[in-house]
Amino acid sequence: MVRWCLLICCTPLLLAQSDEIRTMLRNSQAAWNRGDLVAFASDYEDSPETTYIGKEVTHGGNQTILARYQSRYPNREAMGTLTFSEIEVRVLTPDLVLANGKYELKRTPAGGGDASGRFTLVIRKTAKGWKIIHDHSS
Amino acid sequence: MVRWCLLICCTPLLLAQSDEIRTMLRNSQAAWNRGDLVAFASDYEDSPETTYIGKEVTHGGNQTILARYQSRYPNREAMGTLTFSEIEVRVLTPDLVLANGKYELKRTPAGGGDASGRFTLVIRKTAKGWKIIHDHSS
Repeated sequence: MVRWCLLICCTPLLLAQSDEIRTMLRNSQAAWNRGDLVAFASDYEDSPETTYIGKEVTHGGNQTILARYQSRYPNREAMGTLTFSEIEVRVLTPDLVLANGKYELKRTPAGGGDASGRFTLVIRKTAKGWKIIHDHSS
Repeated sequence: MVRWCLLICCTPLLLAQSDEIRTMLRNSQAAWNRGDLVAFASDYEDSPETTYIGKEVTHGGNQTILARYQSRYPNREAMGTLTFSEIEVRVLTPDLVLANGKYELKRTPAGGGDASGRFTLVIRKTAKGWKIIHDHSS
């Protein structure tokens, strides 16, 4: 009975959080596709504890994350067109969300060719809104 | 002042959690290296919500996770010798921890040759102890 009450009471909150994360990812995708890496990187928490795992681990706030993206995607051709799909959102606490999904980059051969992979994001609700505190992309 | 008090009060808890996770990973590594995939898979939460991301996403509890490992590592030679290193543990809440690190497999050419990569784990304290609720390995 308590479980059902909790479920009924919490469901609107869980759905709201999930919607906010999906909106964040749509905005993030749109930022990438207009070439706005500054906006894209601003979705990460501006903290030295923020981590990005690709082949290696990067620690740092917005400037560090931005520099990493700028070095790998120096121009629009290298950025290509980004699509997120198969997004799953799991609410861990009212302030913490785990999200994963698939990314696909459509690019010209000169831009590096098409690429795709999967990402895991741990996202925390901060005073500045939902921010990525950990990204593992592969 | 409040921050300092919180830091002083919480530091022993944070260190204890971090130690528990490092011990769990050492035990996990030892289980792998004695060929005990059942013990290795038992570190995951036995829930349909548990996720494992490699190239694709796997959802499921211990049996699903175990079957995934068994299909990819069907014998001791394919399992090789596992070493975890560069482990970082970030305590998110008293019951949630984010960990990442590097894995290396030493294997014979017949076993598939050496392999290495990085993992992200989201680990939750459950009634059965700390359990992995999400693994992204690449």
